[in-house]
Amino acid sequence: MSDPLSPTELQEILAFTKALARKAGALILEGSHAIQRAGLGSVGEKKNAVDLVTEYDVKVEELVRGEIAQAYPHFQFIGEESYSSGTRPPLTDTPTFCVDPIDGTTNFVHGFPYACISLGLIDQRQPVLGVIYNPFLEQLYTGARGAGSFLHTRVSANANADADVDDPYPHPQRLPLAAAAVRPLPGLAGALVAVEWGSDRAQEPIKRKAGSFSRLAGAPPHGVMAHSLRSVGSAALNFALVAQGALDMYWYVGCWPWDVCAGIVIAQEAGGFVTGGHNVSTRDGVVTEAILTGRRFLVIRGVAGGTTSEESSLDVQKRLAREFYETVEDIPLDE
Amino acid sequence: MSDPLSPTELQEILAFTKALARKAGALILEGSHAIQRAGLGSVGEKKNAVDLVTEYDVKVEELVRGEIAQAYPHFQFIGEESYSSGTRPPLTDTPTFCVDPIDGTTNFVHGFPYACISLGLIDQRQPVLGVIYNPFLEQLYTGARGAGSFLHTRVSANANADADVDDPYPHPQRLPLAAAAVRPLPGLAGALVAVEWGSDRAQEPIKRKAGSFSRLAGAPPHGVMAHSLRSVGSAALNFALVAQGALDMYWYVGCWPWDVCAGIVIAQEAGGFVTGGHNVSTRDGVVTEAILTGRRFLVIRGVAGGTTSEESSLDVQKRLAREFYETVEDIPLDE
Repeated sequence: MSDPLSPTELQEILAFTKALARKAGALILEGSHAIQRAGLGSVGEKKNAVDLVTEYDVKVEELVRGEIAQAYPHFQFIGEESYSSGTRPPLTDTPTFCVDPIDGTTNFVHGFPYACISLGLIDQRQPVLGVIYNPFLEQLYTGARGAGSFLHTRVSANANADADVDDPYPHPQRLPLAAAAVRPLPGLAGALVAVEWGSDRAQEPIKRKAGSFSRLAGAPPHGVMAHSLRSVGSAALNFALVAQGALDMYWYVGCWPWDVCAGIVIAQEAGGFVTGGHNVSTRDGVVTEAILTGRRFLVIRGVAGGTTSEESSLDVQKRLAREFYETVEDIPLDE
Repeated sequence: MSDPLSPTELQEILAFTKALARKAGALILEGSHAIQRAGLGSVGEKKNAVDLVTEYDVKVEELVRGEIAQAYPHFQFIGEESYSSGTRPPLTDTPTFCVDPIDGTTNFVHGFPYACISLGLIDQRQPVLGVIYNPFLEQLYTGARGAGSFLHTRVSANANADADVDDPYPHPQRLPLAAAAVRPLPGLAGALVAVEWGSDRAQEPIKRKAGSFSRLAGAPPHGVMAHSLRSVGSAALNFALVAQGALDMYWYVGCWPWDVCAGIVIAQEAGGFVTGGHNVSTRDGVVTEAILTGRRFLVIRGVAGGTTSEESSLDVQKRLAREFYETVEDIPLDE
């Protein structure tokens, strides 16, 4: 049994992970360009496309595993490979990197600018650190337990600010972004909700998704009239956009711990609420091991307290989660 | 009757319009922050939210109309206001700016980074120039008939490139982006398709949209298995993303000429194909006045010729448009 990582240790690991994310990001950009130039992403030669995507997925994962093994030889590592090999070792108290080398693979292939690397760290079976880097928009999201979450970007909030040549990310902004900080969110009506069509296109899941999306978007009495629905195609970046305050909530069935581990920390440190699917009995905003590995997630941004002074922010988020799961159907998993 | 604008005149107008777009963009950012700080975008006090949005919509339109009237006093102007006042003057041969001051209003309110100003110019009843500026991501798209279309951005394609302090947009890139240029697009299967839930949430249009989206996303025999569906919530930026090559196609029913006028030029100059809705009889890629004002659009990115040498790029695009309209249902208009 190991001691929990200290705040100082977390900050050191964060600095390492940020640098690693930018290195990986450069490789992701290179891969996306190579794949697009090869004419893939929409071509009949599926085999080649898949091969090239796999090639870069492996390249990025090798880079990341190698650097982590060198810097933190005693840390464990969870990624798609370790899972798909069939051996799913239970979490231990040891610090464990939980990494998706390329999140948003479809976007990566098409050059749609929402692909990223997602680097999460689990300690004492809880997500404690997250770095998400989107090299297409050069947006770096970071979060560490107890220390807040941030968006680092070349693009300033002020269109007239000068760029700083020495620091490529001279404008770290605390999340949620100031303009979005703790706005009220009285209900699903008026909420901007991220949903995704996902990779399972069998008739039953598609039917349930379309029905659920229709109830979110539709006007009463057939729906709850969300302000609108958005789909950018990356679980990690949807978590980041919720943390930022640009999305009010994000719901997804079918993603893996490495898709969301980093995003969970970034969202929670921004006041966000994370829970599992329909079957979760107690929704207290704690991401248990069962939720982390349960493949069903709902994340709700930080909100101001309710209209009655008795309702805390957490109360509001818990109420919204209940309303949400009364509105949408559960989706069967493809595995 | 006036002479068509010359290429030189178009370039002069383009320089003016780019500068105007950046000015308007700063105002859009200011407005979005003000509205978010006021706690709107998801608040019960709908009236106030609507008032503030309208206030900035009007402010941006006034800025734009004022500068255009000063620089080009003889040009005409089409915007939401002129239409909603009930008088819909027919197009003339006179150059006419066709402007959406804030496209992606829902995003503008929530701080979701896909809102923009869309400045189009119609000459001889045809869209001939377009500038779309997204101040949230500092991305400026431009196009002029016969002179190509471009993405100007602070963010370089190469993550390591240095920023240039003097020119905020030192990296104009021809569209489609090099990596995406004329990839093949054999069918709807494998295509990345933008769709939107839109503002009409009555049961019938929502049902038809959900059914159409399901057929696009679903696996055969129930669907055509598009690679995935994306929804970012701005018609102008969807056109720009198709021009860029990041999206393969975008379909929408319900938008107005000012939402798409600039995007049409930017997409066409990047090899894109633009057509109207189910009811359009001849799909030759020419945007007639009937298509421009018809509120139904399908845009398909530039593609390489088909697998048989007889099929030209235009043939492929026309075939894709036919397949698309066999897959989706027509959506009734709310007006």
